[in-house]
Amino acid sequence: VSAPTCAACDRKWPPERLRIGDLGLTVAYLNEDQFLPGWTIMVLKRHATELHQLSADERHGLVDELSRLAQALGDEYTAAKMNYELLGNQVAHIHWHVIPRRPDDPAPRAPVWTVEHAPRRLDDAKAAARITSLQGRLGL
Amino acid sequence: VSAPTCAACDRKWPPERLRIGDLGLTVAYLNEDQFLPGWTIMVLKRHATELHQLSADERHGLVDELSRLAQALGDEYTAAKMNYELLGNQVAHIHWHVIPRRPDDPAPRAPVWTVEHAPRRLDDAKAAARITSLQGRLGL
Repeated sequence: VSAPTCAACDRKWPPERLRIGDLGLTVAYLNEDQFLPGWTIMVLKRHATELHQLSADERHGLVDELSRLAQALGDEYTAAKMNYELLGNQVAHIHWHVIPRRPDDPAPRAPVWTVEHAPRRLDDAKAAARITSLQGRLGL
Repeated sequence: VSAPTCAACDRKWPPERLRIGDLGLTVAYLNEDQFLPGWTIMVLKRHATELHQLSADERHGLVDELSRLAQALGDEYTAAKMNYELLGNQVAHIHWHVIPRRPDDPAPRAPVWTVEHAPRRLDDAKAAARITSLQGRLGL
């Protein structure tokens, strides 16, 4: 099931160059802005906008993939805490922001959205290196 | 399992007057600041800080309770979108912010943390009315 005006269903977002890999029900992508290293987006393959629209099996698979991805990101980036956010205020299609919070974070006690910063977009080589390392950790 | 210095395990937070009810693995509380009506906190009963520390059964139960609560809040507050956030940057003990985003929200496209506002603390009667209505909807 896809929705005609959905940027995720139309594959307009996230950009393909940031694709980490297929986790089963979802696909993981490095977030464009890497000011917090390892910020990842995990997108449900089919179109849905709320958890209750999923079957119980889908919901369980979704949270297991979220857990697996977060554990890998936490290990890779030596996170003190992981943040898991399903918002959808701009793109309603179910996608999780999975964000390692490191002890040397500019504001480790604050939500990421309030941290003022210059966006950090990686060049292709740096993005690919980050992605390859995560693929190895995830066995993808 | 509880942690000796954890505000959630010590029952110092969230405040008991805001308790909505027991969902099984978790307990739901109205958020102290109700500037966005229906903002709710769903706290895991046992101490854990990351999803991968839970058994698969616990993780599945957790996401089912999250889904059930979010659906009830979405209906009660006629939300255009629900936000689901597991952060733990200040209190690491697993708790979800479950937030109805309404079309008349001051900034419906933005994360709640960036919305400047005067905190809105309900008096006891208003908080109790909100809680009673949610308990009815959840069958608690």
